[in-house]
Amino acid sequence: MSERRSVSTVRVRYAETDQMGVVYHANYLVYMEEGRTRMMAELGLPYHELERAGWALVVRKAEVRYRAGARYGDEVLVRTRVERLGGASILLRYELERSADGTLLATGSTELACVDLKDPARAPTMLPEHLRSGLS
Amino acid sequence: MSERRSVSTVRVRYAETDQMGVVYHANYLVYMEEGRTRMMAELGLPYHELERAGWALVVRKAEVRYRAGARYGDEVLVRTRVERLGGASILLRYELERSADGTLLATGSTELACVDLKDPARAPTMLPEHLRSGLS
Amino acid sequence: MSERRSVSTVRVRYAETDQMGVVYHANYLVYMEEGRTRMMAELGLPYHELERAGWALVVRKAEVRYRAGARYGDEVLVRTRVERLGGASILLRYELERSADGTLLATGSTELACVDLKDPARAPTMLPEHLRSGLS
Amino acid sequence: MSERRSVSTVRVRYAETDQMGVVYHANYLVYMEEGRTRMMAELGLPYHELERAGWALVVRKAEVRYRAGARYGDEVLVRTRVERLGGASILLRYELERSADGTLLATGSTELACVDLKDPARAPTMLPEHLRSGLS
Repeated sequence: MSERRSVSTVRVRYAETDQMGVVYHANYLVYMEEGRTRMMAELGLPYHELERAGWALVVRKAEVRYRAGARYGDEVLVRTRVERLGGASILLRYELERSADGTLLATGSTELACVDLKDPARAPTMLPEHLRSGLS
Repeated sequence: MSERRSVSTVRVRYAETDQMGVVYHANYLVYMEEGRTRMMAELGLPYHELERAGWALVVRKAEVRYRAGARYGDEVLVRTRVERLGGASILLRYELERSADGTLLATGSTELACVDLKDPARAPTMLPEHLRSGLS
Repeated sequence: MSERRSVSTVRVRYAETDQMGVVYHANYLVYMEEGRTRMMAELGLPYHELERAGWALVVRKAEVRYRAGARYGDEVLVRTRVERLGGASILLRYELERSADGTLLATGSTELACVDLKDPARAPTMLPEHLRSGLS
Repeated sequence: MSERRSVSTVRVRYAETDQMGVVYHANYLVYMEEGRTRMMAELGLPYHELERAGWALVVRKAEVRYRAGARYGDEVLVRTRVERLGGASILLRYELERSADGTLLATGSTELACVDLKDPARAPTMLPEHLRSGLS
C-alpha cells in the first residue's frame, strides 16, 4: 500500500494574526482542515459532496505541537497524510512549514469519525467504500 | 412608544486581536451581534428559540465606523437600539465604548430581514407578531 | 487615469460557515481584505512590507450589503477597485460573486486611513508616494 | 499543596457555529483560553499585565478530545486546572461541559512556555516568581 499524501498551501491572512504578531494558535486547526479538504478534493471526493450524500467527518480528537510562529504574508505548506484508516474513523497527520525557508511551523493530527448526518449524535458509521478505497 | 434599548458587555479575547495590537475590525460585527442577542433575550425571545420556531433574522446590510481600537482585556459596552421596525425587517444601531474610560470605539448598524428557514432564499417574511410587539 | 482594479479568489472554508449553512456575515470583511491584499501585491507594494516600512492602513469605515449566501466549497471572486484616493485615505469598493454561476453575493466598501505605526492613535498621515502613484 | 482550579463560563456565539449546527472545533481552543484568562485574573495576575511586564505565555502544545457538540445559545462551563508546573512552562487541563445538563463537551490540555517578549523566538524563560507561587 502506497501511503496517501497531499500538499496544499495557505497564505496567512491579517485576520489570523494576534497581538503577538504571529498566527493565533487555534488557526492552525483551520490550516490543517485546508489540508484535508485538499486531500479529499484530490481523491475526487470533495468534502461538501460527502455531506450532500449524507455523511460527515467529525473531529473527535485534535492535537497540535507548535514549533515556530507563522507571520502575516507567509505562505504555509500543509502536508497531510493518512496515518491510520479504521472502519469508521481516520487518523490524519499534518506538517506545516513556511514555504520561503522550509522552517517547520507545527505538526499535528486529527482523528475523524464518520457520522450519519441524519443523526450526528449517533455512533460512528462505516466510512463510505469509495472514501475508504480512495484513502488507502 | 418608548425607544427599545439594550446594553451588554463583551470582554476582548486574545483571539480577537490582530498584529496591530487591537481588535481585528471584522470582530466588531460579532460584538454587535452579541448586542442584539442580548436585546432579544431581554425581550423574552432568545434568538435560538426564534430559529427553532422556523424563522431567522438574516443580515442584509452592515456598517461600522471605527473610532478607536479596543484592546485585549478591555471590557466593551455594546449599546443596541431599534432604529426602525418595518414589516419584515429591523434596523438596529449600535454604540461600542470602552467601559473603563468611556472612549467611543465604534458605531454601526445592521439591517436584518426575517426569513422563513424552510426556504431562506425566499423573500423576507413578516416578523412574528410577538417579536414585533416586543421590539416596538 | 485608468481605474485601478484587481480580481482575486477565495475558497470558502468550513470554519467560515455558520449554522444557517452559509458564510457567517462578518467573514465577508475578511474576503474583502483578501481583495485589497491582492491588489497591493499586484502593485508591487505587499501590505506586510508597508507595515515593515512603518505605515499601516487602518479601516475607518466598512460597509457590506449581502445579496446571497456563499456556501462551503464555493469559489468566491472578489473584485476590488479604488473608488477615491485622498491624501491620507483610500476608499475601496468590492464586488463578491460565486465563480461557478456568477451570482452576486455581496457588495461593500472600506475606507482606509494611512497611519504612522510609531503612533497609530495619531491623525492619519499622508499615503506614501509610491502607494499613491500605484493606486491612482 | 492544594490543587489550583478555576471555573468560568462562555456563552456560545452564532459566529462560533458551523454548518453542522455545532461549535466549530477550533473554537474550543478559544474557550480553553477563556478558562486560563479567568484563572490568571483570579490569581491577581491578568494576562494582559503579564504581557505589559514583558513576558508572554506561548502555546507549545494543545490537545482537544471532542465528546459532544456545543450549540448556539448554550452556556459552557470551562474548568481549568494546573496539571504540572515546571520552571519555564505550565501544563493546564480543561473540562468543558454544558451548564444546562452537565453534558461533557470536551476535554483538553495546553502546554504553555514563558517567553521574553523582547525576543519571543528565544528559549523559554523562567516563569515570573509571583506567577509560579500563584499557580502552585
